[in-house]
Amino acid sequence: MTGKISSRKVYDGRIISVDVDTVRFPDGSVGELEMVRHPGASAVVPVLKGGRDPQVLLIKQYRYAANGFVYEIPAGRLDPGESPEKCAARELQEETGYTAKRLRQLTTIYTTPGFTDERIHLFIADGLSKGQSERERDEFLELFPVALSKAVGMIRSGQIVDGKTVIALLLTFLEHTRQ
Amino acid sequence: MTGKISSRKVYDGRIISVDVDTVRFPDGSVGELEMVRHPGASAVVPVLKGGRDPQVLLIKQYRYAANGFVYEIPAGRLDPGESPEKCAARELQEETGYTAKRLRQLTTIYTTPGFTDERIHLFIADGLSKGQSERERDEFLELFPVALSKAVGMIRSGQIVDGKTVIALLLTFLEHTRQ
Repeated sequence: MTGKISSRKVYDGRIISVDVDTVRFPDGSVGELEMVRHPGASAVVPVLKGGRDPQVLLIKQYRYAANGFVYEIPAGRLDPGESPEKCAARELQEETGYTAKRLRQLTTIYTTPGFTDERIHLFIADGLSKGQSERERDEFLELFPVALSKAVGMIRSGQIVDGKTVIALLLTFLEHTRQ
Repeated sequence: MTGKISSRKVYDGRIISVDVDTVRFPDGSVGELEMVRHPGASAVVPVLKGGRDPQVLLIKQYRYAANGFVYEIPAGRLDPGESPEKCAARELQEETGYTAKRLRQLTTIYTTPGFTDERIHLFIADGLSKGQSERERDEFLELFPVALSKAVGMIRSGQIVDGKTVIALLLTFLEHTRQ
């Protein structure tokens, strides 16, 4: 049987943990793999205005990993037992103050399956209305509304570089240019 | 000054290491962040046949993190001192046996900047010619040539779920549908 033979936790942290697993591969061989365990996350493209070139709401957020500010869509980790859709709605509200009438799933991706099991569930949200924003500590962000076509230009020019954000925006763009 | 104040290595492994860093945030507050350190990688869309709906070469590869086979573009980690372009050419050759006349960079992404500094440099390759394939151990893969339009359909239907692969294919598709 392909898959896990045994597992040894080498780091158990606040957000991630790391296992070194002994794994049987499809050819029957056995080896060790480092695996960052992550609870998974949801992310959502908030559509502020519809039409042929809709306006979407990005956030510009400090990311230590990138040593600066990064354009992203609202996103965050799943709470224990929380559904991906509920998580997307919660993160949208916490990070932007908006609530959505409709959430629709675009896809679910593996961020980087060579070393982590993290999956991100991607949604698109419309029918937005403004409430209160409750920003979490450690999140330094400003709202950045932008036309979808301009956001795609920012992807192509290397200004938008966050993986989940690039995927969700390009899928939204494909849907709109095909209608 | 925003950024690192101090760093403590909590795991030092074969491919990744994990630091817990004390960080000053833009508002002056100080906190700890877990950061998976990764050397970075390159990935490449091999274009087998040009034209309005080009044929691209995917690989179907066993990924323990996904508990099964995942469609991907050829990719791999940068060797110490290796340029992203050289890495892309090397991985293309090792994983598929093809060498490319031309490599062109699409963009560079952060796979998941909440907890890792991993960046993947994305390329498109054409003018391919077949040589010998040298497959690394731990890589169980089969070649999967497919029309680009069909690959985009596989993204939308959730059959292609690897982040870097989704981004590189969608960017390639956008370029081709705009010409």
